[in-house]
Amino acid sequence: MNLDPYRSFIAELAAASGDFIRPFYGAKDVAVEFKADHSPVTAADRGAEQLMRRAIAGRFPQHGVIGEEFGSERPGAEFVWVLDPIDGTKSFTANVPLFGTLIALLHEGTPVLGCIHQPILGQLVIGDGTVTTLNGRPVRSRATARVEEATLLTSDPAALPACSGGPGFQTLMGRARVARTWGDCYGYLLVATGWADVMFDPIMNLWDIAALVPIIGGAGGVISDPKGGAAYPATATLASANPALHAQVLAALNP
Amino acid sequence: MNLDPYRSFIAELAAASGDFIRPFYGAKDVAVEFKADHSPVTAADRGAEQLMRRAIAGRFPQHGVIGEEFGSERPGAEFVWVLDPIDGTKSFTANVPLFGTLIALLHEGTPVLGCIHQPILGQLVIGDGTVTTLNGRPVRSRATARVEEATLLTSDPAALPACSGGPGFQTLMGRARVARTWGDCYGYLLVATGWADVMFDPIMNLWDIAALVPIIGGAGGVISDPKGGAAYPATATLASANPALHAQVLAALNP
Repeated sequence: MNLDPYRSFIAELAAASGDFIRPFYGAKDVAVEFKADHSPVTAADRGAEQLMRRAIAGRFPQHGVIGEEFGSERPGAEFVWVLDPIDGTKSFTANVPLFGTLIALLHEGTPVLGCIHQPILGQLVIGDGTVTTLNGRPVRSRATARVEEATLLTSDPAALPACSGGPGFQTLMGRARVARTWGDCYGYLLVATGWADVMFDPIMNLWDIAALVPIIGGAGGVISDPKGGAAYPATATLASANPALHAQVLAALNP
Repeated sequence: MNLDPYRSFIAELAAASGDFIRPFYGAKDVAVEFKADHSPVTAADRGAEQLMRRAIAGRFPQHGVIGEEFGSERPGAEFVWVLDPIDGTKSFTANVPLFGTLIALLHEGTPVLGCIHQPILGQLVIGDGTVTTLNGRPVRSRATARVEEATLLTSDPAALPACSGGPGFQTLMGRARVARTWGDCYGYLLVATGWADVMFDPIMNLWDIAALVPIIGGAGGVISDPKGGAAYPATATLASANPALHAQVLAALNP
């Protein structure tokens, strides 16, 4: 399957959504609403998803769309776009550039292309399961062999104690060389580009995960659910820089 | 005391150190050494401190200097500069822009001027205990009244369980609207500029703290040690956006 037309279209979507989002960043008058699940949303989230939906409908009217803010259209289509306009809205609304726009393309339900775009730092990561690029240049995840030498990340430290796998990951963070909450999608960007080693999120939605699968895989890393099962669809995510490290973390999370 | 000459000199130091540090950021071939206390150091840390020391010696030869990497000269002088060239070296070496250059001026042992400079995001915060500015414009910390509405930050989640006040702060993070490890000095920058509410670090050195005191105070916030005592000198730091919130956090840390 030739993905090149979709790859260049993803870059167009990322550029357009980034141009829309950037003026909202660092503005103190951006209203933050809280949705039913207590997650925050702003006009930047909504507007960016709407403009991406319009672009997809114009270019690929037969494709489906699943988005965080505006639901599903034709989710059973052969090709379905999965959109999270701002993953890390809490960072976005705190003037911290550790958020991103997630765009994935599913083919018959499987993520075949994914993008993380950080519009403030100007980082565009695209993966197809075989190759992952940062601003057009191939990147590889690290060979870090042991947790004691690794950088371990999670999005929300307060979420860990009560979540499946969370206490085990907390213990691992205590053993790691560096432990931080550099989330949300930015943590996976750091793993894919070789700057961090493990990222764990005990609570995920489909639109949070889809783009990560071809990005982590294409960089040489491993992504799964926290028990080692399929990464997508799932409700939690563990990504590691290499298979040996992933096996160590899985063992610690599933004693 | 007229601090204006020192204020403009701090901005010169920040610009020069930022120009030196920036090319090292995001470079995979930057060697990271670990010091006796296990904290990392790079050629960027050392070179930035050396150039600031040279500039101080040239302009104010009678002043003292205390720096993280190269120790103390004339620490008993009337005016002493306190330098941390890269506070947050773990972020710096992970390609995460949550680090900064800390520069403080002590007058007879008391911090009277402080600067946090983030050279990648282009943020220069300067405080004198009365006014704090971000890139020249006055900023104020927030009026957030309750922990449940607050954003709580710490640098290293793995440091909390074993540190004085740490378990209490972990419990508070579980009650907060947002809890993250957006450290190190960047957490204090977020409190001073009105983007976060509380920052707690259970382990601090003098060169980590000195600059924060006039910055947090000048923004309308409160900074102390975790028991409510003097912020400087101390070995741990609690900063809050306002006095009411600070009192709540102190009560939780000191049951």
